[in-house]
Amino acid sequence: MRLALQAAQQALQEGEVPVGAVVTQGRQVLSVAYNLREQQSDPTAHAEMVALRKAAQELQRWRLQDCWLWVTLEPCPMCATAVRLAQMEGLFYGAQDPRIGGCGGWIDVIHETALGPIPQVRGGLLAEEAASVLQLFFAQLRTQQARRDG
Amino acid sequence: MRLALQAAQQALQEGEVPVGAVVTQGRQVLSVAYNLREQQSDPTAHAEMVALRKAAQELQRWRLQDCWLWVTLEPCPMCATAVRLAQMEGLFYGAQDPRIGGCGGWIDVIHETALGPIPQVRGGLLAEEAASVLQLFFAQLRTQQARRDG
Repeated sequence: MRLALQAAQQALQEGEVPVGAVVTQGRQVLSVAYNLREQQSDPTAHAEMVALRKAAQELQRWRLQDCWLWVTLEPCPMCATAVRLAQMEGLFYGAQDPRIGGCGGWIDVIHETALGPIPQVRGGLLAEEAASVLQLFFAQLRTQQARRDG
Repeated sequence: MRLALQAAQQALQEGEVPVGAVVTQGRQVLSVAYNLREQQSDPTAHAEMVALRKAAQELQRWRLQDCWLWVTLEPCPMCATAVRLAQMEGLFYGAQDPRIGGCGGWIDVIHETALGPIPQVRGGLLAEEAASVLQLFFAQLRTQQARRDG
């Protein structure tokens, strides 16, 4: 989760919503990624999606049934469903997202039986640090907007 | 929707689950895509996601607030959430998906107020043709499996 947090900090420096994600297979790190929505002009480029795609490329298969996703913020329903479609073994996440979290923070896609075998899920890992990076980003954004408007 | 159906038929020929998608802006077609999960080893490469990414690349922005998605099958929660994250104006889809549809067929993400302005949504367009292509694909798959097992 430290690696995912570092990726989130990199996103912060690059002006992206700072969320970081890592995919592991056993003890091996397959991919590290952060949110690239602005830079790639891609509405789907959440950290989790970028990390999943990279990991699947690395393994040359779309089923990631022996892989875990580590992400600093609770995945949204897009990303949570992607975890399920990839048949991942498990998910660790940091801060909860009561706004649009897809793992119970808002709605719960991650435990839906309709999407096949349910992964292991644990939230709250380094949650304070993960949330702080996000709070810093949105505080900076508000300052910039106030300057622009003022 | 004819274009999307043609894309689905192309997917069928290439051994992918045959779903096709198109993104339009006014009368202009920005992207045509089909499911590429197998060929790209990408669990997120549903037709809708590929079409959205292409359209966003074309416009060089992630907000597709003046765009419509046309897709032969009701989007799953991953794709339905992506439509919302991209702030799309509207969605036309063909066959309903009671298994994992994200627009009311199974769960309903497309009309959730938490995800911002709600797009216009209309299902059932050329639904029979869209469903037939899928039925053909799964029938072929079962025949192949039966041959392999027998």
